[in-house]
Amino acid sequence: MQCGMFMTPYNPPSRTSRQVFDWAVEIARIADDAGYTDFMIGEHYTLAWENIPLPEAIIAACAQTTKQIRFAPMAHLLPYHDPATLAVRVGWLSQVMEGRYFLGVAPGGHHTDAILHGFDSIMELAPMQLEALHLMERVWEGKPFREQGKYFKAGFPGPDTMPEYWVEIADNSPYGGREALEIAVTGLSESSRSMEFAGSRNYSPISFFGGTSQMKAHWETWATAMEKAGHTPDRRRFRVCRDIFIADTDEEAKRLVRKTGLMRTWNDYLKEIYVKFGLFKGIIADSGRDITPDQVDDDFLIDHVILCGSPERVIEKLEALADKVGGWGQIVANQHDSIDDPKPWEESLRRLASEVCPKVNMPL
Amino acid sequence: MQCGMFMTPYNPPSRTSRQVFDWAVEIARIADDAGYTDFMIGEHYTLAWENIPLPEAIIAACAQTTKQIRFAPMAHLLPYHDPATLAVRVGWLSQVMEGRYFLGVAPGGHHTDAILHGFDSIMELAPMQLEALHLMERVWEGKPFREQGKYFKAGFPGPDTMPEYWVEIADNSPYGGREALEIAVTGLSESSRSMEFAGSRNYSPISFFGGTSQMKAHWETWATAMEKAGHTPDRRRFRVCRDIFIADTDEEAKRLVRKTGLMRTWNDYLKEIYVKFGLFKGIIADSGRDITPDQVDDDFLIDHVILCGSPERVIEKLEALADKVGGWGQIVANQHDSIDDPKPWEESLRRLASEVCPKVNMPL
Repeated sequence: MQCGMFMTPYNPPSRTSRQVFDWAVEIARIADDAGYTDFMIGEHYTLAWENIPLPEAIIAACAQTTKQIRFAPMAHLLPYHDPATLAVRVGWLSQVMEGRYFLGVAPGGHHTDAILHGFDSIMELAPMQLEALHLMERVWEGKPFREQGKYFKAGFPGPDTMPEYWVEIADNSPYGGREALEIAVTGLSESSRSMEFAGSRNYSPISFFGGTSQMKAHWETWATAMEKAGHTPDRRRFRVCRDIFIADTDEEAKRLVRKTGLMRTWNDYLKEIYVKFGLFKGIIADSGRDITPDQVDDDFLIDHVILCGSPERVIEKLEALADKVGGWGQIVANQHDSIDDPKPWEESLRRLASEVCPKVNMPL
Repeated sequence: MQCGMFMTPYNPPSRTSRQVFDWAVEIARIADDAGYTDFMIGEHYTLAWENIPLPEAIIAACAQTTKQIRFAPMAHLLPYHDPATLAVRVGWLSQVMEGRYFLGVAPGGHHTDAILHGFDSIMELAPMQLEALHLMERVWEGKPFREQGKYFKAGFPGPDTMPEYWVEIADNSPYGGREALEIAVTGLSESSRSMEFAGSRNYSPISFFGGTSQMKAHWETWATAMEKAGHTPDRRRFRVCRDIFIADTDEEAKRLVRKTGLMRTWNDYLKEIYVKFGLFKGIIADSGRDITPDQVDDDFLIDHVILCGSPERVIEKLEALADKVGGWGQIVANQHDSIDDPKPWEESLRRLASEVCPKVNMPL
């Protein structure tokens, strides 16, 4: 099983943009050194707790400071970009990274981001994403065209288009060709339309954790859509995101995790959102506990939301989960602010790569 | 007189995107170390000889590798970006750079870039830039609004817009407030409308060299527009871009410059463009030579286009130019590919900062 990282980021609004930037670059360096396979960075425009609007900045800053880890914006929110601009930038950056790059795409579900971009609702975003992808693919082909869509327009110059202004054209298509570019999509809700979308296009699925029933549904939705579109679903392409904290012993992990940024994110930010939108439902069902979402407390988070414990305990929990939902190829650790007390967090993320991932028996 | 750098970039199409990226980051490190004030990076999408479509990538990669130098995209091509996306990214990156950031804006004059973005001509780009700037300014204000323009739309969320989805909003306005953000505009042609545009909005003027008459016109157009808009034009804000090469002696400089990327850019790329669009006119007039543009050869470039010679000779040439056109605040050295033979080029750019700029007597 590979391990990856997801840098939403989750840093408190009190952090400056520079602090978040430096911290992200440092965590990527540690992850690269520890042997992580992938490093994904969110793109949000208005969320004070998730404030990296330019994931390319982190990727570019890590080009020279990392050696083997792959990076992805997860995800570029396609309705909020000119598709020709984005296609060229994605291609160029994948070249700068010499292929250590893959691409996350999403329609952009956060309402405050939609309002920032002048939308009354998020209804229009899904068809905009489809049109943007279509135009990006055409730009990457590098053949002369001009197309006016419903939302966007794009083209590609050739020697016959405005010949008086012709110059040698840069090749900013993806590194190694379009076929070499992995595209990935995240899913959160149990009936995730993005998992179906991913499967229908042979994009890779990334599952945010919401309980065993939701995880199973994510895989099945993706696999069914893949087969329907004539592709072979492979569990090694399935990435699963979890909150993880590892220490010497279960007791030590349970003690230390309470002081981490991970717990702060849940208490100061995520818990309210999870309660409001019913996102604890599947996790509470798995727990067998008879509680309502607003009764979720630190102990519940530690026992049922976070994979918390010794390396052996975390291996056991991962294998138990895989027994229930089937295997996956990459466990993705969500990142949380560790600026005030970096050591236990760094140790935990190193242990995931060195003591957990190589030993997990994953049904694939 | 300050010195600055302009990274168009001018690298031959044979260079990979990674080579150009690494080279740009390295030149910025050297410039920072040598005491340059500003480092500007172009944004182009289709030009094989000027291929950095994501100047933010260079800036971000230099955040930790430089200490005092300021960076600017020169320029973001506003019609090719969603204005809300760009406003937030500019604000956030200026925060990451802790104020070592200023902003170049332009409508995007290259026809092949316009075609890439689906345009039939470049006629629409100027009004699009105006609308984009208007919406960016509103986003930076951070007050709730929603506006549908002719080309773009944008908004800003407040607690009353979709209150059920309200979260704490990130402040991605420019570092130190909007007033602290310098905006700059480049001008090339003698009757430059962009210089008037810059003056009318209190943006700083950056003059690409085209002879004394053009330089005077750039200043006068900007200064007149500034005064008309109630601002005081200050020659210290005037930046002038030149090709510069310095060595121990005039003879050594003239000998070494022939082997530089600077000369290669002119011979393999710029000369044809300058001939086609009549851009040598003012420089030939200044030279007193009776030649046609297509007769421009290496000797002419070395004597009349490039400030080439010993430090003393370059000081003399700069002071002679200032006598004719009036003073300026920053001389900006255009960068050219120096990957194959970096030493003479690095030495030249260090000498500009250490042996030329501090000694130039500039009428201000």
